[in-house]
Amino acid sequence: MQLTDLHGSLSDPLLDTMNFLNEVTARFPDAISFAPGRPYDERFDPGVVAGYLDAYAKYLERDRGLSQRQVGGLLFQYGRTKGQIHELVAATVAADEGIEVSPESIVVTVGAQEGMLLALRALFRDSGDVLLVASPCYVGITGAARLLDIAVEPVPEGPSGVDAAAVRAAVARVRAGGRRPRALYVVPDFANPSGTSMPEKARRELLAAAVDDDLYVLEDNPYGLFSRTGRRVPTLKHLDEHRRVVYLGSFAKTCFPGARVGYAIADQPVVAPDGSVTLLADQLSKIKSMTTVNTSPLAQAAVGGMLVTHGCRLRSLNEERIRRYRERLEALLAALDRHFGGVAGFGWNVPDGGFFLVLTVPFVADEAALTRSARDHGVLWTPMSYFYAGAGGERQIRLSCSYLDVDEIDEGVRRLRRFARSYR
Amino acid sequence: MQLTDLHGSLSDPLLDTMNFLNEVTARFPDAISFAPGRPYDERFDPGVVAGYLDAYAKYLERDRGLSQRQVGGLLFQYGRTKGQIHELVAATVAADEGIEVSPESIVVTVGAQEGMLLALRALFRDSGDVLLVASPCYVGITGAARLLDIAVEPVPEGPSGVDAAAVRAAVARVRAGGRRPRALYVVPDFANPSGTSMPEKARRELLAAAVDDDLYVLEDNPYGLFSRTGRRVPTLKHLDEHRRVVYLGSFAKTCFPGARVGYAIADQPVVAPDGSVTLLADQLSKIKSMTTVNTSPLAQAAVGGMLVTHGCRLRSLNEERIRRYRERLEALLAALDRHFGGVAGFGWNVPDGGFFLVLTVPFVADEAALTRSARDHGVLWTPMSYFYAGAGGERQIRLSCSYLDVDEIDEGVRRLRRFARSYR
Repeated sequence: MQLTDLHGSLSDPLLDTMNFLNEVTARFPDAISFAPGRPYDERFDPGVVAGYLDAYAKYLERDRGLSQRQVGGLLFQYGRTKGQIHELVAATVAADEGIEVSPESIVVTVGAQEGMLLALRALFRDSGDVLLVASPCYVGITGAARLLDIAVEPVPEGPSGVDAAAVRAAVARVRAGGRRPRALYVVPDFANPSGTSMPEKARRELLAAAVDDDLYVLEDNPYGLFSRTGRRVPTLKHLDEHRRVVYLGSFAKTCFPGARVGYAIADQPVVAPDGSVTLLADQLSKIKSMTTVNTSPLAQAAVGGMLVTHGCRLRSLNEERIRRYRERLEALLAALDRHFGGVAGFGWNVPDGGFFLVLTVPFVADEAALTRSARDHGVLWTPMSYFYAGAGGERQIRLSCSYLDVDEIDEGVRRLRRFARSYR
Repeated sequence: MQLTDLHGSLSDPLLDTMNFLNEVTARFPDAISFAPGRPYDERFDPGVVAGYLDAYAKYLERDRGLSQRQVGGLLFQYGRTKGQIHELVAATVAADEGIEVSPESIVVTVGAQEGMLLALRALFRDSGDVLLVASPCYVGITGAARLLDIAVEPVPEGPSGVDAAAVRAAVARVRAGGRRPRALYVVPDFANPSGTSMPEKARRELLAAAVDDDLYVLEDNPYGLFSRTGRRVPTLKHLDEHRRVVYLGSFAKTCFPGARVGYAIADQPVVAPDGSVTLLADQLSKIKSMTTVNTSPLAQAAVGGMLVTHGCRLRSLNEERIRRYRERLEALLAALDRHFGGVAGFGWNVPDGGFFLVLTVPFVADEAALTRSARDHGVLWTPMSYFYAGAGGERQIRLSCSYLDVDEIDEGVRRLRRFARSYR
């Protein structure tokens, strides 16, 4: 069969960029890699999981009064489409983020990625609906939109993320084209790829714009817990008085990625023609029954066990990780100061937390440059141009520090400096 | 927000039928239920899973030479998008089904349901492409098609499933409407909901029609292992000399549903405009990176551990289950003979295996009838009309015996008889 005979998304470079990155990483396994945005490897053994499964089973028996047979059914049978650990998730977002929602407004998903797919499929009625995205933008959301043939309108990000004025301007552009701006995707805390965060004032203004413009906000928050400075700004969902926000959560960074467990909070009432009212979460659930049926009860049980063990407080569960990611980001900033400080043509932002920052360079940082960097200098990074729907980011690279040890970070930046020198 | 303002699938009764079934089951928890198509509850405890995780870890260390640290990474980090147990799956389908494919042509999915979504999204280019489905049909495929706005054309099933002539007629109807018949969805073994199976000759004729009409075949095979008679007919994929078949596998019934692990076999070469060749599996993988990123490595490890423990032979792993499902189906057939034998207006088919059969009744078997049956007679079943895209099945009910004990089956059919009598 011909590639051009398949769905258009498969001919879109967007879905190939991640493949290129994986390939180049595999081709140069000894290179120091600032590319992957994934958590550092921890010493995890199957015994740890067994302990968490056991903790979850004990919670079901003791706190919920289930029989052993019922517990077995909950772990190994098909499960509730909206998920089984929704009450634990509700308790966790209340404790950690001050987000007070009914457990019924939560859908447990196969990672935040499935949450994006469900939210897009539910909210976007037809080809007249447009998704606004902060630009540069995580490819997971633009990729999911591409699968569903949903048009995307970029909203340029400033040093403090997207602001309400830029959103209003994008809304006006879309409306002028006769289409409906339906939702905005944004990572307000330590964004991937830029590392920027929105101040509280900007968040309040964004929510006001969403109300004025009848826009929903998809708030993705995988990194919020990992503050470098110790300060936290309230999430959009916490500030969301008018239920404009669908919150996309992930346990990949706060529990472990191999569970593939995330969640969507969708507490918007949905009114049917017969007057009956459901929650948007119920509608997401109907879609989920046709994408993955339910999120692996085994994986939910492992995450559930971690949550009950730590009293539904991810902050307590992640003390060690919070410290380590802070060290890594500090180490990256220090290494940049050491090796690039005062060097003309180079510059970088100083994120308040998370895994990423952006280094501006005086050359075109494309795939050819990345291949040379890996082959000749043993260092990998991600071209920022990957994260722009159109033009943008040509002379910028994303550096991720989450996966590297502190001493690798310094050596990696040293190699980056050598690679950059080769351009002169 | 208004329901009518969301995606059209959410206003389609198709996505609501399963909700009604779940609700009625919850409202009458003491009723004997022939409704759920799920496996019977086994005594599973978390220790069993720990043992399988351990078996998988040992396999990776001993047979694949990985270090403990690498094994930890494979279980708990993000994983390969196409999956991690693809080699074990390839060995298993070779041993059990004589399907010889490269592990690279396999994508491990979040249940067969995600496999359907990926295959539909890849193969269907635009709104001119039409999906043929055996009718009556499992709602998972028509629901997934609805999410992607893919048009569906029913192919009426006979007592031996779909036949090539009916497929060719449907192809002609679609072509006459100016659209492209792109793929046919079929469950050749012990179909859900009808229980029918295709004879080998019909399978060969179907594959010939697929070649002639440039049609792909989505072969879904969740029940094939559970033969009542002990005889097995070769799968379409085994007979597939021209790579027309995308095979959708599930471990829900053969390992356990709570893993949510399935797979797609897509060994078709795909040629890009630049002449480069990939496998259809690689294209499904690109889509999967935007739906669920990867199937839970933890869940894959549990299934992988079950496979290595049983030498990649599901038949050996499932000896007990094969026996039990055979007993249940035999019990259901015997109970129908006992309580409905010779009663005018009633009739049923005699499937060679699987979980389901169809009872024809002399009244309209709709939601109102189901509610009365549950409330007044303590027995639940599924209206066959749920499984028809248009009209059909109004006087038929699906009986599933997989979830019931043998003695419950007899009592259930006795109640069904009492309920049926109340119509006279």
